Amino acid sequence: MSLTNRQLRLKTRPEGLVTRNDFDLVERPVPELKDGEVLLRTLYLSMDPTNRVWMRDIPQYLPPVALGEVMRALGLGRVVQSRSSHYQEGDLVQGVTGWQDYLVLHEDAKGYVHLPADPGIPLPTLLGAAGMNGVTAYYGMTDIAPVQPGETLVVSAAAGAVGSIAGQIGKIRGARVVGIAGGAKKCRYLTDELGFAAAVDYKAADFKQQLKAATPDGVHVNFENVGGDVMRAVLSRMVIGGRVALCGMISGYNSAERPSDDFSPFIMKRLSMRGFLVLDYTRTKEAVAAITGWIREGKLKTEETVAEGLENAPEVLNRLFDGTHRGKLVLRVDMQA
Amino acid sequence: MSLTNRQLRLKTRPEGLVTRNDFDLVERPVPELKDGEVLLRTLYLSMDPTNRVWMRDIPQYLPPVALGEVMRALGLGRVVQSRSSHYQEGDLVQGVTGWQDYLVLHEDAKGYVHLPADPGIPLPTLLGAAGMNGVTAYYGMTDIAPVQPGETLVVSAAAGAVGSIAGQIGKIRGARVVGIAGGAKKCRYLTDELGFAAAVDYKAADFKQQLKAATPDGVHVNFENVGGDVMRAVLSRMVIGGRVALCGMISGYNSAERPSDDFSPFIMKRLSMRGFLVLDYTRTKEAVAAITGWIREGKLKTEETVAEGLENAPEVLNRLFDGTHRGKLVLRVDMQA
Repeated sequence: MSLTNRQLRLKTRPEGLVTRNDFDLVERPVPELKDGEVLLRTLYLSMDPTNRVWMRDIPQYLPPVALGEVMRALGLGRVVQSRSSHYQEGDLVQGVTGWQDYLVLHEDAKGYVHLPADPGIPLPTLLGAAGMNGVTAYYGMTDIAPVQPGETLVVSAAAGAVGSIAGQIGKIRGARVVGIAGGAKKCRYLTDELGFAAAVDYKAADFKQQLKAATPDGVHVNFENVGGDVMRAVLSRMVIGGRVALCGMISGYNSAERPSDDFSPFIMKRLSMRGFLVLDYTRTKEAVAAITGWIREGKLKTEETVAEGLENAPEVLNRLFDGTHRGKLVLRVDMQA
Repeated sequence: MSLTNRQLRLKTRPEGLVTRNDFDLVERPVPELKDGEVLLRTLYLSMDPTNRVWMRDIPQYLPPVALGEVMRALGLGRVVQSRSSHYQEGDLVQGVTGWQDYLVLHEDAKGYVHLPADPGIPLPTLLGAAGMNGVTAYYGMTDIAPVQPGETLVVSAAAGAVGSIAGQIGKIRGARVVGIAGGAKKCRYLTDELGFAAAVDYKAADFKQQLKAATPDGVHVNFENVGGDVMRAVLSRMVIGGRVALCGMISGYNSAERPSDDFSPFIMKRLSMRGFLVLDYTRTKEAVAAITGWIREGKLKTEETVAEGLENAPEVLNRLFDGTHRGKLVLRVDMQA
């Protein structure tokens, strides 16, 4: 039985939000495996803001996706054929699958995590809290800008995949955690379900006043995912000597213009800021063990939003930017998964 | 004999460059000294970019100068009358004198440095390399973003009071030092007299190409005094993991608009940045000892530009922003000094 691999290949570099027309949906026969290779069926794709950055032809930490190339994305696949002694049919593999139904993977390929057929954690969570997003939050709160007990931590995009974990790790570390999110519903989620001390709605007309009221002692640590106006408002509340873990700046990813940021508070308040990328860190086992431990102990809550259909990947990716999802956004590619 | 104290008091908050009309020149009688007081004759005033910031009614590290108040400034004074057992006539005192001819100082006043009548260092140098500017450069290069042997250090405003010392300390620490300055003459000064590896003219049409050519291995540390376009160009040359000592951003000090900076490289290149103010540090003795030692050994060259006349303080301050001076800019107030 010959299998067909549907692929979304980048056709044009999007301006603003991506559209289906920016991609070619092509069908390719799945090739015969060679020795040492396995065939992965994509079960889920991870929808990440950085995907949008990879489509742009700007200097960044990885080469931009080339025109004509399968769109790069993290995903979770299941081994459906194996000519490798390391992999058995049914095993799970996490790594760069791309926006496609199938991937032929060599057993020596770097950067792929081999998981048992039943990992004991819901599959979407593997791509979120127990995956790169959770690990990113972990490093930010333990290495980049470790928050201390009693300090005030402000997390932006706090109902998102990284922010919701970063805030909860801050809480586990004893900080007073204030989340920034869009809309009353998400804000209630932060306070009522995740136990944040306060939540502030960046879409509210009185956002700055809300933020001030929620941080009467100022802000000691900012775990920043948004940039732009939201970040500026947080910087205005920082205490002298405050630290910023700069994880992302999603507010600018759809814009061709240079962001307008403001370094001035860094001098006046002697702030320090470190940008970071999870790919520099190798203590993934430690991070995942800590996170899954907290999940099992009920200290860390996770939430995933599951969309469906490989062909819908461009529109689903846009949901990262319109704020209509909560927690980790994943795309189910295999309807049997 | 009754003495008259000329004072420049802030009348209006300047927009853009300051003018004489922003100040009232008033004459006040010098009061009789009480026990424990000394009378200082201002010899020199230190002209610093931060003076311009103090005139602005914005949040900052010290209260803005109030309207009607004598303009705040560091200076060097000589004791001309003393009713304190700690001070003798002829002694030198460094600290906030303000834009005025005389200051009555109590012997217990904090923040003033008592120096002998002949300190063995030229008086303008006391306000520059061997004063707050040199100490600022020292902390930036030893504490905030210590540069390592073989690394490339880029210093902006490199022919200025702080930059010229920061670059030379970088050189003493074994770094390859590239200076950014305005005009061919200043650039030659950096390479031919201070021994920098290269100098780049930010006023040149091909500034960015010059900077690229001067930093073939990228930039490991940026000692930043300018901000804006100059800083953005340097950030584009930073290596992964580069560090920024953010000392000043003079390019924005005359502007009422919010600066347009760009945090994006901080993520892509995992940069770290710390803003700092010299007033947080207490190891001034160590810093001054190191600096004066290097001056005596011929490892550190200092340069001062001396302007004259208290009444000219506003126009002289503007020279910090038009790039027409080199090294430390001081204002001689006492023509006998």
